[in-house]
Amino acid sequence: MTTYTFEPRLGTDRTALYVEVQQFYARQVRLLDDLRAEEFAATFTADGVFAPSPGLPPAHGREAIAAALRAAHARRFGTEPVRSRHWYNMLRVDPGPDGTLVTHYYTLVMVSRPWDPAPVIAPSSVVEDVLVYEDGELRTRERRITPDHQSF
Amino acid sequence: MTTYTFEPRLGTDRTALYVEVQQFYARQVRLLDDLRAEEFAATFTADGVFAPSPGLPPAHGREAIAAALRAAHARRFGTEPVRSRHWYNMLRVDPGPDGTLVTHYYTLVMVSRPWDPAPVIAPSSVVEDVLVYEDGELRTRERRITPDHQSF
Amino acid sequence: MTTYTFEPRLGTDRTALYVEVQQFYARQVRLLDDLRAEEFAATFTADGVFAPSPGLPPAHGREAIAAALRAAHARRFGTEPVRSRHWYNMLRVDPGPDGTLVTHYYTLVMVSRPWDPAPVIAPSSVVEDVLVYEDGELRTRERRITPDHQSF
Repeated sequence: MTTYTFEPRLGTDRTALYVEVQQFYARQVRLLDDLRAEEFAATFTADGVFAPSPGLPPAHGREAIAAALRAAHARRFGTEPVRSRHWYNMLRVDPGPDGTLVTHYYTLVMVSRPWDPAPVIAPSSVVEDVLVYEDGELRTRERRITPDHQSF
Repeated sequence: MTTYTFEPRLGTDRTALYVEVQQFYARQVRLLDDLRAEEFAATFTADGVFAPSPGLPPAHGREAIAAALRAAHARRFGTEPVRSRHWYNMLRVDPGPDGTLVTHYYTLVMVSRPWDPAPVIAPSSVVEDVLVYEDGELRTRERRITPDHQSF
Repeated sequence: MTTYTFEPRLGTDRTALYVEVQQFYARQVRLLDDLRAEEFAATFTADGVFAPSPGLPPAHGREAIAAALRAAHARRFGTEPVRSRHWYNMLRVDPGPDGTLVTHYYTLVMVSRPWDPAPVIAPSSVVEDVLVYEDGELRTRERRITPDHQSF
């Protein structure tokens, strides 16, 4: 396993780090919600892991992550025109082992359909990510999603 | 067109800038949700533009923005007692041309009625703002709202 | 009444302070949502006040706050298995009297039940907190919640 180190420019400035993670998610989520699957997968490390639910097998690597994203959308919505918006909240950012960052946050998905102004709210979940710096950019190395309604 | 420059105190500190934008929106949104239309309009530049939807004509200038805000509320709710809360999320802040800031974020509106504890969720939208510094204060020069259910 | 002073390390850095408050809430809310009532109450000062609604008597002190939290959950949900997630948004952080911080934010509660992927949204509220530093840690000295549907 590669050991990552934070960029020196961040130093011990946890304020800058927290804001940088907020902005990283704001950019990453647009790729997710626009179904730009390859670009979304490129925000993961090459050995990235995406675990959409404790009951499902995780995707390993960018190609598998992009394929899993497309498959999940097709399974849930078929060819129905929908627009999803992921909302994140209550973000924690902590130092993890080997120079990683560990984040925790709440998520919801708002699903809109044409001409219906009331979005449908999809599962509330808790997400744990492992983030690393690669070439001066934040990347996701692991994402583990636990939907609330399956967590009892 | 006026060219704006950032206040020196911000310098290149993008962390401080991001947090300042978060706080600007937290203050501005209270004026919006309290229907303090003139005070809300005063957070725009004198030549500010407010475009509530790609299908509607934008309001130009503070007077028109205040009037548009009142008209939209009356059209949607009449004299019904409701309380709206705008929620913003997944904020991106980027440098724009001529010393401006360009922001992107998701929005939802929660509408509460007396004695009904379950708020109704109004359209999910994406907003693009152009922000500038005037007299050391952030102001909105342009706001363009795209509701998700009309964006297919 | 004790007078609190901010830790020198924060100095006048309002950016760091804002981010620290965001992280404080992200940690505190997990204790609230996991019903770890004593640990949640320990994030309040010993003389902390928790006012859940203008129409209800506030709880004074940690023991009363923990008891109020358990009672509110039992009253609302009985022994039904539910998972609550508090969402905060549109946070303002301002200096208050005597070295305190005063914060304002919007809240919603998402309530999930087993096997039902659609969470129910509980009341939209506005919260005003008074925060202080004690032993280098942020603590809540007062929390006053105003549910929107009761505020007309």
